[in-house]
Amino acid sequence: VKRSEGLKTACIGCGVIGASWAAAFVKAGHTVRLFDPAQSALNQALAEINVVIKGATGGDAKPGQGTAIGRVFVAASIEEAVRDADYVQESIVEDVDVKRRLFKQLDEFAPSSAVLASSTSEIQPSRFLEDLAGRDRCLVAHPISPPHLIPLVELCGSPWTTGMVIERAAAFLRGIGSEPIILRREIPGFILNRLQMALIREAMGLIDTGICSAADVDKVVRLGLGRRWAILGPFEAGHLNSRLGYSDYIMKFRDSMSSLFRALSVQNDIDLRLINRIDQELRLRVPLSKISEQQTQRDIRLSKLGEHLSTSIAVDHRDEAT
Amino acid sequence: VKRSEGLKTACIGCGVIGASWAAAFVKAGHTVRLFDPAQSALNQALAEINVVIKGATGGDAKPGQGTAIGRVFVAASIEEAVRDADYVQESIVEDVDVKRRLFKQLDEFAPSSAVLASSTSEIQPSRFLEDLAGRDRCLVAHPISPPHLIPLVELCGSPWTTGMVIERAAAFLRGIGSEPIILRREIPGFILNRLQMALIREAMGLIDTGICSAADVDKVVRLGLGRRWAILGPFEAGHLNSRLGYSDYIMKFRDSMSSLFRALSVQNDIDLRLINRIDQELRLRVPLSKISEQQTQRDIRLSKLGEHLSTSIAVDHRDEAT
Repeated sequence: VKRSEGLKTACIGCGVIGASWAAAFVKAGHTVRLFDPAQSALNQALAEINVVIKGATGGDAKPGQGTAIGRVFVAASIEEAVRDADYVQESIVEDVDVKRRLFKQLDEFAPSSAVLASSTSEIQPSRFLEDLAGRDRCLVAHPISPPHLIPLVELCGSPWTTGMVIERAAAFLRGIGSEPIILRREIPGFILNRLQMALIREAMGLIDTGICSAADVDKVVRLGLGRRWAILGPFEAGHLNSRLGYSDYIMKFRDSMSSLFRALSVQNDIDLRLINRIDQELRLRVPLSKISEQQTQRDIRLSKLGEHLSTSIAVDHRDEAT
Repeated sequence: VKRSEGLKTACIGCGVIGASWAAAFVKAGHTVRLFDPAQSALNQALAEINVVIKGATGGDAKPGQGTAIGRVFVAASIEEAVRDADYVQESIVEDVDVKRRLFKQLDEFAPSSAVLASSTSEIQPSRFLEDLAGRDRCLVAHPISPPHLIPLVELCGSPWTTGMVIERAAAFLRGIGSEPIILRREIPGFILNRLQMALIREAMGLIDTGICSAADVDKVVRLGLGRRWAILGPFEAGHLNSRLGYSDYIMKFRDSMSSLFRALSVQNDIDLRLINRIDQELRLRVPLSKISEQQTQRDIRLSKLGEHLSTSIAVDHRDEAT
């Protein structure tokens, strides 16, 4: 990973995540080689990459973007996809053994200078890298879907990944407009999914005990927490809640926080009866026949929100991004 | 609460929340009587209401807003504030006994047709309403701060509150542009703070165990979860993650969700050493001397985000709001 554009990248596995990564890479000026054993996945990915390049929000394509699709290549094999690569992003099925076998091939075929990254949202990298010769140049780069529209990427090395490799991956991702954060060591669920699952577990508890509907939870998050959190994370938000800062803010609510912690749901199993109840409620709001259309709406709105937020970022966050 | 504007409202307690409610009420065309025993709070509130009326985002005042401040009155007593009121919003200190005494006065002085609402974020309404003669017309209307910029309001009745009173409060709040949701019964922390605290507890655990910094958590939430959740709540987001809907999506991740639930932090006490560490980190990012300026920035960005989102709401949510 040498320069800020014109790098050779490879996307292995071309589902929703792989296609979105490929679109982000090519938009940033890199070439992308796609590999997926399923021709249907490749066709779908090429169509999605085209939509992104042309501007999913309906705006005009920017100068140079007309030729971007010319930097996308379909590879006939994993070897062909990665043999010249500077950066490889794996987005295949979430299966430790399948990933272990794939990373063995990637390590064998990719130049020794290439960084090899996995999109896994749930598998600790040591679980599929332990026996790999080139495990020092492999890591997890976990995006929040879809990565061409949401900037956050979690970088998580294995115990053998070098700091230099993590920094090279971070630099590459910043170059495509992502905002990587780096975990200090590996942990199940990384950060984002642990935070998300903590909230979802409590939400499921509230629905299960009859306090509210799934629609109520969605409104509380969308019109309350999400609106605040799109601008400020929970700690900076707390810090700004008192002119004396975070400690002062927390001390006022210490006892009620502590008793709320005690009152939170402790349910560990996924209750299928509850999941079905939530599913039925959601189908009344968005029938399965409308999901595809709503996915398009979601991506348009995410794209517009990203544009809006990038023009209204406060000074402290601008500094942080540099 | 009879018509959609021109109602007589009262705000008792004029701190940040009370002043923001007052601004929202007066912007919607109602008259507001303010009461606070502290003259300094009243002065600050009047200044903040003026800023909101004039347009905190720097835009031009809309027609009619020039006269809005003429609908704000300072009352010399609680009786004067509420004696003609259609809707009363209490935003005083979070203390059960103080609220109990205040609601006794509100119930005595306000017309029997008035709705009496508390802004409490943490006290179940039965705790201060149990012995009140007019407890059937009282409820919690818990905003997310500041209520003139964030639409969500949680309505939570006591066991004695009538459904009609809750509906009248909901109609009044919809009339000022809020989006009320109604809890089916009272519960500590209502919904928003339980969801928020579930996430914050896990975030504190991640910082405490050295996985990441508070800044990392803030980035994960702001650039990842918050961006998604400003558009879609967690259940509708999951539903759109599979063309076969929510159950299908969850079933793919059922085992890893369940094992993540088991791995989440179970810390119940607020660790002051950790709070101080987070506080120190936050002061490096935003020194106490800059908090006031950053609060202003936050409110400007919240206001602009609200405007942006109100023009990019998908069809399903438009329907929901009507």
